[in-house]
Amino acid sequence: MENLRINSERLWDSIMQMGRIGATAGGGVGRVALSDLDRQARDLFVRWCEQADCTVRVDRMGSIFARRAGSDNARPPVLTGSHLDTQPLGGKFDGIYGVLAGLEIVRTLKDAGLQTKAPIDVVNWTDEEGVRFGSGTMASAVFAGRYNLDHGLTRADMDGNTMGAALEEIDYAGPEPVGGYPVAAFFEAHIEQGPILEAEGKAVGVVLGAQGQRCFKVTVDGEEGHAGTLPMVQRRDALVGAARMIDAVNAIAFKHQPHPVITVGALKVRPNSRNTIPGQVVFSIDSRHPANDLLADIADKMRRTCEHIATDAGLGLSFEQISHRNTIEFDERCSGDIRKMADRLGIAHMDIYSGAGHDACNLALCAPTGMVFVPCERGISHNEKENARPEDLAAGCDVLLHVILERAGTV
Amino acid sequence: MENLRINSERLWDSIMQMGRIGATAGGGVGRVALSDLDRQARDLFVRWCEQADCTVRVDRMGSIFARRAGSDNARPPVLTGSHLDTQPLGGKFDGIYGVLAGLEIVRTLKDAGLQTKAPIDVVNWTDEEGVRFGSGTMASAVFAGRYNLDHGLTRADMDGNTMGAALEEIDYAGPEPVGGYPVAAFFEAHIEQGPILEAEGKAVGVVLGAQGQRCFKVTVDGEEGHAGTLPMVQRRDALVGAARMIDAVNAIAFKHQPHPVITVGALKVRPNSRNTIPGQVVFSIDSRHPANDLLADIADKMRRTCEHIATDAGLGLSFEQISHRNTIEFDERCSGDIRKMADRLGIAHMDIYSGAGHDACNLALCAPTGMVFVPCERGISHNEKENARPEDLAAGCDVLLHVILERAGTV
Repeated sequence: MENLRINSERLWDSIMQMGRIGATAGGGVGRVALSDLDRQARDLFVRWCEQADCTVRVDRMGSIFARRAGSDNARPPVLTGSHLDTQPLGGKFDGIYGVLAGLEIVRTLKDAGLQTKAPIDVVNWTDEEGVRFGSGTMASAVFAGRYNLDHGLTRADMDGNTMGAALEEIDYAGPEPVGGYPVAAFFEAHIEQGPILEAEGKAVGVVLGAQGQRCFKVTVDGEEGHAGTLPMVQRRDALVGAARMIDAVNAIAFKHQPHPVITVGALKVRPNSRNTIPGQVVFSIDSRHPANDLLADIADKMRRTCEHIATDAGLGLSFEQISHRNTIEFDERCSGDIRKMADRLGIAHMDIYSGAGHDACNLALCAPTGMVFVPCERGISHNEKENARPEDLAAGCDVLLHVILERAGTV
Repeated sequence: MENLRINSERLWDSIMQMGRIGATAGGGVGRVALSDLDRQARDLFVRWCEQADCTVRVDRMGSIFARRAGSDNARPPVLTGSHLDTQPLGGKFDGIYGVLAGLEIVRTLKDAGLQTKAPIDVVNWTDEEGVRFGSGTMASAVFAGRYNLDHGLTRADMDGNTMGAALEEIDYAGPEPVGGYPVAAFFEAHIEQGPILEAEGKAVGVVLGAQGQRCFKVTVDGEEGHAGTLPMVQRRDALVGAARMIDAVNAIAFKHQPHPVITVGALKVRPNSRNTIPGQVVFSIDSRHPANDLLADIADKMRRTCEHIATDAGLGLSFEQISHRNTIEFDERCSGDIRKMADRLGIAHMDIYSGAGHDACNLALCAPTGMVFVPCERGISHNEKENARPEDLAAGCDVLLHVILERAGTV
């Protein structure tokens, strides 16, 4: 059993095949959660899992659990997986690797005729990216009890459509309750999405935790008017105010280097017409830092700065925190298992913290949780150019296989 | 004939009825050109014109010409009209008043059994606002020979769909050639969209001309990246660069007060996701000034400023002028006729320049052209709150009636 290895080519081929659903002209993938493309990706994943003798269940948040039965199915399952949704212009690997690494493991176990004691669930968490509904990892957050089901299902997009309605539309509003049962452990494999492993020449990162994150929705209210006739001095231009806020919020990140990152990624102008003075602008702020107290300080500074700018320009302002996650420390036994198996398989590894949030950050609240990182080219992610090497993906998957085998136990 | 007056109540009712097509919750109208709502508005206008014994023709740019025949139809027609399309959150009067004032005039002539020598064409120019295709008054520009037909039909929206295809979709890609024939005169009635007439207590503005306008499409190219993992110092954030440009361009307008107006009204972020660093931002600049040379100076300043900001931030920049209109002086005989008729009817009037661009600015290049302004409440336009008084609308329409009767001649 110690010599068991996953099928690297099959893993790579599955990732490439999945990447065709929502493939973009620039070589990436655009498969936003709860779109029809997401439905197609889910259908393919379900078909593959069923072919690997898994039993598929879908919970009320639309997360998919493909179970490979154990010899003792009363035992809490070992969970592994990630997400199949992507950014609007994302890559083939972010999230997808973790889901298909889980699939590759149950395929490998089937080929080897190996039976575990505890069942293994390969999971696809709904809407990790949070593109449309503004709050990522909501399905795993509900699973872990951070939010109740109603909160999750009523998240609304900019047009007021809820996540619950969107799940019904793609036929993935499942019948199963969300979480509430014991989980032996959760392991998530993922590309690093940063430049460190590549620079250090390590195939595997043992993820010790993830930095804290606070996200905000900022609404700037001005007054619409005709671009040709309303004198400058009489204007209350929401976009000019928002522009000053974006520049100022960026400057706050630079004042606290090297650690914090602050990003205004999404912005919407109303009515968004060349010859009308913007009446309203809504934009997002995503701020992250490994120190929880400094992250809170930065939030206060951003709020006060935006308030000053709004007041000076005669604009209305709503500055609303829409999500908050403290810095997460993963389970030490899980990290230890990952380190031990990488050593045993002779795979170069290092300890690392995650810059990004992951579903694992939620799972850490309800189950022993660990993450396996693999390098990606130049650290580029959330980008069509996102890339990774087949040998690194295989190395991470092999480590994951043996970690899961140990945790689930073999007959 | 000197006692002939239009039916004020019928004019008002028609404007209110037209305002129901695309009515917004805020009391305005959202009826963007070449949408299905625009089609509905056009259909209603065509029905009304046919009921008023007009013959309707549609040209290849989709502009509608409803002709009331004269006694000598070999004479060049007298044209009057404006546009039925609106801003996404616009009002009931901008453009609509001018079209329905023309309709009210042919209805009045029908009721009175009056025959003119020259034919009268009531016109609805396609897409005055330029919301979707980025360049307003394109249909009248092609009519006047400023651009050729192919240029007009190939204008594309942000998704690459052309105006020609959009016209086919709403079934208003007409068979008639665009312009190219003699026009006796064009008169356009319009709300002022500024605060002057109301402040001066005048029901009619005799429009002497319109200020010059230059519009730009600015594209800022950065690089997408993960909001949680890419260090601030390694970022090339297109939205931060665009924000600095918007603030700087606004400051340039303030440096040259009181005259210039500069507006960034439309902006699009790619990929527009909370947790992805923006890779590209495209925004519009609309700049206007009565002095052509100063407007050119301002354009140079804006371009240099944006170039500096882009260079400093390591961003790519394309700064493209997409339209340019010099300050227009309308025909003196047309203005004189409007002044004379307002005097004759005892209507308070004043000379005025237009802050906004109008289809009349294009027509002035190919035909004697004049404009009649009426006040609107607080000068508010391109806004759901846009409002005007029935008596002012009637006064402007009465002046227009007598100006047209004189120009067309009566039998």
